[in-house]
Amino acid sequence: MTKRGFPKSEFQARVMRAQTMMKVQGISALLLTTEPDIRYFTGFLTRFWESPTRVWFLIVPQSGDPIAVIPAIGAHLMRQTWITDIRTWQAPNYCDDGIGLLSATLAEVCDGAGRVGIPDQMETHVQMPLSAFRKLEDEIAPLVIVGDGAIVRSLRMVKSDAEIAKIERACGVADRAFARVAEVAQIGVPLSDVFRGFQGLCLAEGADFVPYVAGAAGQGGYGDVISPADDTPLVDGDILMLDTGLIWDGYYCDFDRNFSFGVPDVAIEAAHAKLMAAVQAAANIAEKGAKMSDLFHAMNNIVNAGRAGSDAGRLGHGLGMKLTEWPSIIAEDHTVLEVGMVLTLEPGIETGGGRIMVHEENIVITEGGARFISDFRPDRTWVI
Amino acid sequence: MTKRGFPKSEFQARVMRAQTMMKVQGISALLLTTEPDIRYFTGFLTRFWESPTRVWFLIVPQSGDPIAVIPAIGAHLMRQTWITDIRTWQAPNYCDDGIGLLSATLAEVCDGAGRVGIPDQMETHVQMPLSAFRKLEDEIAPLVIVGDGAIVRSLRMVKSDAEIAKIERACGVADRAFARVAEVAQIGVPLSDVFRGFQGLCLAEGADFVPYVAGAAGQGGYGDVISPADDTPLVDGDILMLDTGLIWDGYYCDFDRNFSFGVPDVAIEAAHAKLMAAVQAAANIAEKGAKMSDLFHAMNNIVNAGRAGSDAGRLGHGLGMKLTEWPSIIAEDHTVLEVGMVLTLEPGIETGGGRIMVHEENIVITEGGARFISDFRPDRTWVI
Repeated sequence: MTKRGFPKSEFQARVMRAQTMMKVQGISALLLTTEPDIRYFTGFLTRFWESPTRVWFLIVPQSGDPIAVIPAIGAHLMRQTWITDIRTWQAPNYCDDGIGLLSATLAEVCDGAGRVGIPDQMETHVQMPLSAFRKLEDEIAPLVIVGDGAIVRSLRMVKSDAEIAKIERACGVADRAFARVAEVAQIGVPLSDVFRGFQGLCLAEGADFVPYVAGAAGQGGYGDVISPADDTPLVDGDILMLDTGLIWDGYYCDFDRNFSFGVPDVAIEAAHAKLMAAVQAAANIAEKGAKMSDLFHAMNNIVNAGRAGSDAGRLGHGLGMKLTEWPSIIAEDHTVLEVGMVLTLEPGIETGGGRIMVHEENIVITEGGARFISDFRPDRTWVI
Repeated sequence: MTKRGFPKSEFQARVMRAQTMMKVQGISALLLTTEPDIRYFTGFLTRFWESPTRVWFLIVPQSGDPIAVIPAIGAHLMRQTWITDIRTWQAPNYCDDGIGLLSATLAEVCDGAGRVGIPDQMETHVQMPLSAFRKLEDEIAPLVIVGDGAIVRSLRMVKSDAEIAKIERACGVADRAFARVAEVAQIGVPLSDVFRGFQGLCLAEGADFVPYVAGAAGQGGYGDVISPADDTPLVDGDILMLDTGLIWDGYYCDFDRNFSFGVPDVAIEAAHAKLMAAVQAAANIAEKGAKMSDLFHAMNNIVNAGRAGSDAGRLGHGLGMKLTEWPSIIAEDHTVLEVGMVLTLEPGIETGGGRIMVHEENIVITEGGARFISDFRPDRTWVI
C-alpha cells in the first residue's frame, strides 16, 4: 500500500543534491515561490494555493536546512513537515507583506553577498507581485537575483521510487474510473453531466482531488482538447474524449481515453489504431540514453507522416507534482532520458474537417526500458 | 435559470471601463498574463491552466478590442469567445516562446512608445518565466512596463449582476452539499473519505469543479484551516470543519460549515454562537459607504475582544473568479464598499489549547445593504 508523505531522508537527499549543484554554480541560496517547488523540498501540501492572496517563500541555503518564510496562517501546517526554521508574518500586510523578513533572512543566509537563484526558465514563474519582486531586488543588494541554472528542474525531472509510486497510484485511480465511464456517459447525456459524473467516479475510486478534466465530443473527432464541457447531449456517432489529471497525495496522473458511440467508420478506426501504434512505437524506444526528440519522431512519423508539428505543439511531456512538467516531446528537445523520468505519450491525429483525436498514456523509464503506469491496451474495446 | 457565459456587451463594457482609466493614467496598453485577468476580458474559460507549460498573453489597447497572443493549442477555444484578433505560435518553442510575437504586437498597439501596464500589486503575479519577462523588457524598449495602477483590481472587485448570479449559483450548490454532509461524515469515517465524499456531493449538486476543499476535525476545535485530510477517523466529540471553494461557470463560492459530533460542551457552543454573532454584526453594517475596516472591527470585537488579529491575518475577503480576491477584511483596509461587491465574512475564534474554530458566509452588497448568498442560519443545528 502506497503511503502518504515521504521520509525525512528523502527531503534531505533532495536538498543535498541541490546544494551540490549550487556549489558548482556559485549560487548562495535558492529562493522558491511556487507550490511544487516549495513542496518538493518541504512536503508542505495544501490546496490553499487556490487563494492567490498570500506569498510563500522557501530559502534553500548552500549549506544547512531550508528556511520557510511564510504567512502565519501556514505555520501550523508547516510545523508538521521536517522544516524547523519557520519565520512568519501576519499576512496580508499592506505595509510590508513579508519582503522585509525575506530580505533579512536572505542577507543572513548569504552572509551579505552572493547570488540568489530563482527558477527562471520555461514552465516557471515567480509567484509574487511584480512590485514586491522589484522591492526585493532593491532591498537585498548587494545580493543579486539570478536564474537557478535549472537546478530545481533537473531534480524534479527525475522521480524517486516513492514519487513514482504516488503517480502510479493516481494512474490506477483513473484507470478504474475510465473503466466505469459507460455508467455516466450515454447517448442523450449532456457533456457537462458526463464531466461531473466522471469526476465523481474518480473520487469514488480514490482520487484526493480532480483538478483537471478536459474533453470533447463530436462526430468523427473534436475541435480541441482543452475546452470545458457545455450542455450539448451526446449523440450517436460521437467520439468522446475524456482527459484527467487527478491527484493522489499531491501527485498527478495525466492520460485520456476516447470512446465511440456506435461503431466508428473505417477512417476513424484507422486513426485510432495509428494513435495506439504511435504510443507503442515511442514506448519501444523510450529507454535511458534515448532523447525526447527520438520519441517525437517515432510518434510523428506515424500520426503526422513526419510533417511539422500540430497546434498542440508537442506529443507528450513530463508529469509529477504538476499536470505537465519538463521536458517536452518535441523535435527540438534533446533531453536524454534517465531512469526515473515519468512521461506522457500523447500523440494527436487529424481526422478531417478541422477535427482531431488525441490519445495519452503514462510511462516511467526503468532500467529495463519504458513501463506503462496507465493501463495501455491497444486492443481494448472503445465503443460504447 | 442562470446562463453560462456572458453577452458580448458585458465584455465590451469591461474593456471600455478599463480604457477610460488607462487614458487617465497614461497607460497605452494593459498586458495580462493570468487566468482570471485574461478570462475577465475575453471569457476564455478552461482548466488547462493546470498545465504551467504555456504562457498566455492578452493585450488591452487604450482603444480598440483586445488582442490575444497565445499558443496555437488555445486558438480553437479562443475563437469561441468574442475576441477576433488572435495571434498564435506553436508552443512550447525553445528559441522564442511567444516573446517576439508579443513584443511586435505591443509595439504595433502602442505605436512604438508608451507605458505598458501590468497588474503588479498584492494578490497578483506575472505568469511567465522571469527570463522571458526580462527579455520582454529589453525587446519592447522604448516601451516601458509599469504597474497597471490597480485598474484590473478595481474592475474585478465590483461584480456585474451576471457575475453575482454565477457566484450565487455556486453558493447554492455548496448549500445543498452541506445539507447532506451527514451522508458522508459519521463517527469512524476517515477524514480523507469525508473530503472525498463531500466533493462527490458538491458534484452531484451541480458543481463544475471542486478545486478547493479544506477542513479539519478535532476535539474542541482544530489546529488550522488549510490542511489536507489525513486518514484519521472521526471520533465522538470532534468538531469537523469543511470549507469549500467550488466552481460554477468559472465563479467560486467560498464558505464553510462546522459540525459537532455529539453535543458540544458549553464553551464550544458559546464560541460557535460568537462566530454567528460576528457574521451578523458585520452583515448589519456591510452597506455601500462602509469600509472593510469597519467590518473587521465589528467582528473582531466579538470574536477577539478587539485585540490584534489572529494567524489567519484577516476576517474575510473578496470572492469571484478566484477563491479569494481583494479586498481584505483587516484593520488596515479602508476600501469603501460598493454595490456589487461580493465578500466572505470569515471570523475565527480561539477555543483554547492552540485550537480554533472558523465560520464563513458569503454576501453581496446591494442598494439595500448586505444580502447573504450562502444560506446563513445562525440557529441551524450543527450537531451530527
